[in-house]
Amino acid sequence: MALIVQKFGGSSLADVARIRHAAERVIAERERGNDVVVVVSAMGGQTDHLVEMAADLHDRPPAREMDQLLATGEQVTISLMAMALLQRQQNARSFTGGQVAVHTDDVHTKARIQEIDSDNLRALLDAGGIPVVAGFQGVSPAGDVTTLGRGGSDTTAVALAAALEADECHIYTDVDGVYTTDPRIVPEARRLVKITFEEMIELASLGAKVLQIRAVEFAGKYSVPVRVRSTFDEGEGTLITVEEDDMEKALVSGIAHNEDEAKVTIIGVPDRPGIAHAVVGAVARENVNVDMIIQNQGEHGKTDFTFTVPRSDYQLVMDILEPICKEIEAEALTGSDRIAKISVVGVGMRNHAGVADRMFEALSREGVNIQMIATSEIKVSVVVDQKYTELAVRALHEAFELDKPVDERNHIH
Amino acid sequence: MALIVQKFGGSSLADVARIRHAAERVIAERERGNDVVVVVSAMGGQTDHLVEMAADLHDRPPAREMDQLLATGEQVTISLMAMALLQRQQNARSFTGGQVAVHTDDVHTKARIQEIDSDNLRALLDAGGIPVVAGFQGVSPAGDVTTLGRGGSDTTAVALAAALEADECHIYTDVDGVYTTDPRIVPEARRLVKITFEEMIELASLGAKVLQIRAVEFAGKYSVPVRVRSTFDEGEGTLITVEEDDMEKALVSGIAHNEDEAKVTIIGVPDRPGIAHAVVGAVARENVNVDMIIQNQGEHGKTDFTFTVPRSDYQLVMDILEPICKEIEAEALTGSDRIAKISVVGVGMRNHAGVADRMFEALSREGVNIQMIATSEIKVSVVVDQKYTELAVRALHEAFELDKPVDERNHIH
Repeated sequence: MALIVQKFGGSSLADVARIRHAAERVIAERERGNDVVVVVSAMGGQTDHLVEMAADLHDRPPAREMDQLLATGEQVTISLMAMALLQRQQNARSFTGGQVAVHTDDVHTKARIQEIDSDNLRALLDAGGIPVVAGFQGVSPAGDVTTLGRGGSDTTAVALAAALEADECHIYTDVDGVYTTDPRIVPEARRLVKITFEEMIELASLGAKVLQIRAVEFAGKYSVPVRVRSTFDEGEGTLITVEEDDMEKALVSGIAHNEDEAKVTIIGVPDRPGIAHAVVGAVARENVNVDMIIQNQGEHGKTDFTFTVPRSDYQLVMDILEPICKEIEAEALTGSDRIAKISVVGVGMRNHAGVADRMFEALSREGVNIQMIATSEIKVSVVVDQKYTELAVRALHEAFELDKPVDERNHIH
Repeated sequence: MALIVQKFGGSSLADVARIRHAAERVIAERERGNDVVVVVSAMGGQTDHLVEMAADLHDRPPAREMDQLLATGEQVTISLMAMALLQRQQNARSFTGGQVAVHTDDVHTKARIQEIDSDNLRALLDAGGIPVVAGFQGVSPAGDVTTLGRGGSDTTAVALAAALEADECHIYTDVDGVYTTDPRIVPEARRLVKITFEEMIELASLGAKVLQIRAVEFAGKYSVPVRVRSTFDEGEGTLITVEEDDMEKALVSGIAHNEDEAKVTIIGVPDRPGIAHAVVGAVARENVNVDMIIQNQGEHGKTDFTFTVPRSDYQLVMDILEPICKEIEAEALTGSDRIAKISVVGVGMRNHAGVADRMFEALSREGVNIQMIATSEIKVSVVVDQKYTELAVRALHEAFELDKPVDERNHIH
């Protein structure tokens, strides 16, 4: 008998009919002879509704009160889910974050889990019951309600799985797994059967938004196998786990794309120490996240400096940098909010040169001009004009033969 | 400097505009130099919405989960109210029932307050802050969320006022006080400036639904002065307090009417011990509340037995009694669900015979036939055909000169 943590997201709980359907998934797991702990998000749309009311009442809603408010979303769904299970003669019982208790620090709206006291859940499991736990929320040392930030329910599920030493953590969502790339762009995209935590982190942060990245990091840290699957069909989904010897020996696991960034370039900056700090520091002080940063030394002691920021901050960043460019005597400030970042991800490339080269070749064959390049141990990312997004993704998917089963590809090592 | 507990009901908090308006009432009280503790109900309509979803998921939603669910309603309004006050530079802070803590027994959906730990509130008040407390809810010895039953927010407000030894408890609602009778029936009805707890209990339980009866009992027990006033105008409302020497010396305070009951009569019952028990016991076993009970001995060792039940249970009660009437050899079973109970209430009548007589005289003058009569120390109730409700209320309001100021009436003693 295994212990499974099942987490249902907001779209799987959007109305009472869906809650009833999710309850059937819980019962099916029980009927396979497994113990189950259920973690739920708020009903789809509910959180947005609460945020809207708060914004109506306060220019910058204070974090403690925001948490007190938003935590009601999951408190509604735990009760409703427990009722749905009780109606089906299951010994279910709901728990808020505080009732579990999920102890967090006191950084409201983005609290971190410090410790989980799982005695209450363990006692109910031992009695053959089904704990239904509110995701996203915890309790601070002072006894205040805290929340873990958007998507925090995934983190709750993984943290509970770790604390209870569960065999697997199942994340139920509206897609049936993690794909080699976005199936809306490449219809031949294949569902991955297994993927490593590291690959999933790169794919998630690069725009394959199936699973909260913090949850994946947490799962990797505590080696909790996570399975992403659909609430609406019976497939096995994608298992995210540690790198195993019997893992599919793929060179590349997937192609990610991200159209949420903008690019800023400062041309002809005098090449002296402190320039990068002057530029990035000014941007960071406005709480703008900087992603890729590239500096190319040019001629005559001058350099070009390029970085990417969230597209929604593009105009703000341009405004900040205008006076700074004058100060540092740069020749020009340019940029574009019509870019796309395309990434090739795979643990297989760690032991294999040539992935980057194959990538560049494929893009060049399609006439796609590369504006920026960045690499890490298991990924290569390029920035291209946004109009090439679909073309680039399709070309790379084909170049790495991701539409074929792993053992039929030419690149197995 | 006084300490005031201000309680806002669901209609005063139905949307963000109203919440903002209620916050202004809090600030006005602060500006008068008083300390304030705010108690809120759920947003109007919200509780019904949650109850509906629960009923969709479970035939008889389990009480513990129901409480976990319904308590979210007030948790939303405390956060929003705190935000509205914070936006206006007030040091407000929200508290759930558990955070206060309001300790209750574990009878879910109708828990009773056992003890209030007011240290958290006291500390915030001492720091010049405004605690915003969730009405209606508490925490059980096991740490579960409990609720006090419909209208329980009034009880929370009064209980907090008692625990904090507040000077007054203000109940903000959509009417501007307690009236001598229903102004929709008698336009000349006057707002009462003061009324005793005992009178308020009779008026509330008899159909003047301004304030939860349990809250009034609680207020009387702990001598907490309660002021009922409107959220939407600046009037002083009605003060409910202990009987004082300087109280308006009215013979009668008000006329209540109730059209929610039905009457059942068993005619010609053999007059022997155990009959009342056989009848009322059968009804009580179905959880039907019996209100007035009258038994008149008739001729030849036979008796007539009449009582009232909630109108919604009328058919059920008739069905239960049919076989029982045969068993006890009664001559007939009759009844009516078209009745009204009209009551005259006033502490003044304690020391004055003749109130009942004046009541019967006024009704007789209008040709209103009296079907049942019941009396207590401070009220006289009659049951009449429902078609006479308005006529009877108007006649009595006039007979006791309730449209005149107290010192212009002929009945001062």
